[in-house]
Amino acid sequence: MLPFPHRHLLAIQGLEPPYIADLLDLAESYALLNRSGKTQRDLLRGRTLINLFFEDSTRTRTSFELAGKRLGADVINMSVSTSSVNKGETLLDTASTLNAMHCDLLVVRHAQSGAPALLAQKVDAAVINAGDGTHEHPTQALLDALTIRRRKGRLENLVVAICGDVLHSRVARSNIHLLSAMNSRVRLVGPPTLMPAAAERMGVEVFHDMRQGLAGADVVMMLRLQKERMQAGLVPSSREFFRFYGLDAEKLAFAKPDALVMHPGPMNRGVEIDSAVADDPARSVIGEQVEMGVAVRMAVLDLLARQLRRNA
Amino acid sequence: MLPFPHRHLLAIQGLEPPYIADLLDLAESYALLNRSGKTQRDLLRGRTLINLFFEDSTRTRTSFELAGKRLGADVINMSVSTSSVNKGETLLDTASTLNAMHCDLLVVRHAQSGAPALLAQKVDAAVINAGDGTHEHPTQALLDALTIRRRKGRLENLVVAICGDVLHSRVARSNIHLLSAMNSRVRLVGPPTLMPAAAERMGVEVFHDMRQGLAGADVVMMLRLQKERMQAGLVPSSREFFRFYGLDAEKLAFAKPDALVMHPGPMNRGVEIDSAVADDPARSVIGEQVEMGVAVRMAVLDLLARQLRRNA
Amino acid sequence: MLPFPHRHLLAIQGLEPPYIADLLDLAESYALLNRSGKTQRDLLRGRTLINLFFEDSTRTRTSFELAGKRLGADVINMSVSTSSVNKGETLLDTASTLNAMHCDLLVVRHAQSGAPALLAQKVDAAVINAGDGTHEHPTQALLDALTIRRRKGRLENLVVAICGDVLHSRVARSNIHLLSAMNSRVRLVGPPTLMPAAAERMGVEVFHDMRQGLAGADVVMMLRLQKERMQAGLVPSSREFFRFYGLDAEKLAFAKPDALVMHPGPMNRGVEIDSAVADDPARSVIGEQVEMGVAVRMAVLDLLARQLRRNA
Repeated sequence: MLPFPHRHLLAIQGLEPPYIADLLDLAESYALLNRSGKTQRDLLRGRTLINLFFEDSTRTRTSFELAGKRLGADVINMSVSTSSVNKGETLLDTASTLNAMHCDLLVVRHAQSGAPALLAQKVDAAVINAGDGTHEHPTQALLDALTIRRRKGRLENLVVAICGDVLHSRVARSNIHLLSAMNSRVRLVGPPTLMPAAAERMGVEVFHDMRQGLAGADVVMMLRLQKERMQAGLVPSSREFFRFYGLDAEKLAFAKPDALVMHPGPMNRGVEIDSAVADDPARSVIGEQVEMGVAVRMAVLDLLARQLRRNA
Repeated sequence: MLPFPHRHLLAIQGLEPPYIADLLDLAESYALLNRSGKTQRDLLRGRTLINLFFEDSTRTRTSFELAGKRLGADVINMSVSTSSVNKGETLLDTASTLNAMHCDLLVVRHAQSGAPALLAQKVDAAVINAGDGTHEHPTQALLDALTIRRRKGRLENLVVAICGDVLHSRVARSNIHLLSAMNSRVRLVGPPTLMPAAAERMGVEVFHDMRQGLAGADVVMMLRLQKERMQAGLVPSSREFFRFYGLDAEKLAFAKPDALVMHPGPMNRGVEIDSAVADDPARSVIGEQVEMGVAVRMAVLDLLARQLRRNA
Repeated sequence: MLPFPHRHLLAIQGLEPPYIADLLDLAESYALLNRSGKTQRDLLRGRTLINLFFEDSTRTRTSFELAGKRLGADVINMSVSTSSVNKGETLLDTASTLNAMHCDLLVVRHAQSGAPALLAQKVDAAVINAGDGTHEHPTQALLDALTIRRRKGRLENLVVAICGDVLHSRVARSNIHLLSAMNSRVRLVGPPTLMPAAAERMGVEVFHDMRQGLAGADVVMMLRLQKERMQAGLVPSSREFFRFYGLDAEKLAFAKPDALVMHPGPMNRGVEIDSAVADDPARSVIGEQVEMGVAVRMAVLDLLARQLRRNA
């Protein structure tokens, strides 16, 4: 395994393919460990992992909490609703506090793009971006990649259609970077109003018609419709959205016969995806994505802890 | 000890007396362990316990959290207020997520009767119902039974008066099933508006007068008045309620001289119960109920973990 | 080391100087341990620490949580927002519950002065006051003292200016008691409206002019402006407050050239303190205060656990 060249995991963009492959190999070993019910508690014993969530996310927070505990770390949850940011504290004061507490591993979710990178400049801890604004969500892309690799046997030369609310999706951005780096072809599929202006310059193909966008795809990756990020007048009706962009058996038939169906969760059933498709064990790998999420986070924590200057 | 015939603990109804007795014996041994300050951390080492609370309950959540930690489990709290159900996730998607995370023991509280049973059909974890709607709260009935058995030496041939807001009480339901199964006689005492229509068919006696209901009782079990579950116009005044159904020394005098006073907590003092009675060390076993709560939950976690197919 | 003569840590007032010195020595050893990344997990193994917070405070709660976990305790967070006090439970019922759960160490924050002392009368646990109303916040004064002692080499014969919203500050009260006990001179500096009426009787000097108050000071301790505790019409404007009482380089120049700058956090930058001063590595020890906070709390937990009658 190559020595990892970064102190933090802030983005997929800029991460070279060999390191992605190494991370996925390590995560695969943790996936097997988790299935066997074994743990490796000595690995992070004496290490402090802080989950610093400025936005709520039970799934992601729980996934990191589990990953940290299974490796033996002391895990502390700090959520914004009970946080001193309400009292006017700046992000940099928070960084200073975390340093003083000898935090080793810092998992950050924030509504502002770039907040984890800003913290990373100021803290001694290794920072893991758990989603920042509309920027990136690197562990999500890694778990998606691991899921695809397990099912397809490779990450190269695949056609992956990422569908729906691309505009607001950091998941989409991280996946575009990862899949492009691994030499797969990404298609973005969604209405013009939910497509980023810069989409064409990302080295991807853009489709506004689901059937065209899914034609011959190996993987169909649905995104959550993030109504909470849309302006009041611009929220599409669930009914209309589902008719044109919701994944159902009829539209899925345009993809390859063995195409995978993915969703980062939580799903809006009947909006982005039909229940029959989401629950189809032959096509949907949505549960496996969650499972790989814990494994990927264990791998990331393990890898970054090795780089820490301070030794336990 | 008999092999426990269930994968989950969803209800007292249907649990056979020998298994109840076994559970109480095991809980008794944990009560002694807790008093001695010892722990058994190897028992659930490597196991993941998730406290999934769709309704707030600091006491019950804390009791399970302590029980799990004292047995060495990794305990994760997931509460509804920070949960992805807000983003439209269904209960079954939550089940799928928990499976993917290799949750071993799942403690569920939910406002809907039957929600834990529904989850139990879908998860690999052993599910413990920590209170569902107006259905059941089995660990509360077990801790009540353990407290009674310690004080009375038996669970058979006792007269137990369950008093107050029976209509909204899952605690009452679980206790009726347990005490009836153990051949004790249950009396329900309360105003007609707070008595379930089916009360007569439950094999219990119904009283609307406290003095009659308490006459000769071995145990007086008060319930919390759950105003938050009542319709606006139907909430009794605290003053009126206390006059007719609040437990004070005068009414308690109708019970046996050594009758126990119980309450599941949290108490509304001056509404269901007078402070002089609640705090009388000769009669009140309310503190012991909380203590037995941790012991009973340790026993339940221990017992269900033995049944799990996956081995740590 | 002297045997500690108290079961609880409720206040600095009444704590004799030799015990303060012992606590700081013990905390110093934990500060070194934390810097080395080592832990002492056997010390509180099998002990239950409950963080009972009736007021939000991410920093203080996290500091105690880390301290407890690094010593091996089972740490349980109970916050008011999810607590049964909402259901009308009294503080004493909470005490009874905590006893029944065999809580060993109880950390309490409460908006009412005296609430931790009231709990301490009723619980078997050792109680640590983590801030009660406008009364005291003893671990904050201890961590401030440790920080000063490390930088100045002593706690005696120093001139310490405590500046700003003294009226609402339990931090100020605890520091006045500690510094006076250690034979340092305390000055209170702030507007008449934010100065307690009894200030003159506390054995301190009172100044309403910052430059006079800071003249020749060894330590300048800023307080947070607690607008949330002020009546609507009496809240000073941030701009005005900063002009007269905000710490900037110009005012700081009146203190000794090597004067320390302290703040309990979280800071309102541009209100109580200028960023250039807060972030000046030569003067500001604000980060070190947070670091010493964890060490002091480890020392307090360690010391009080030794007094506990119950043995693990």
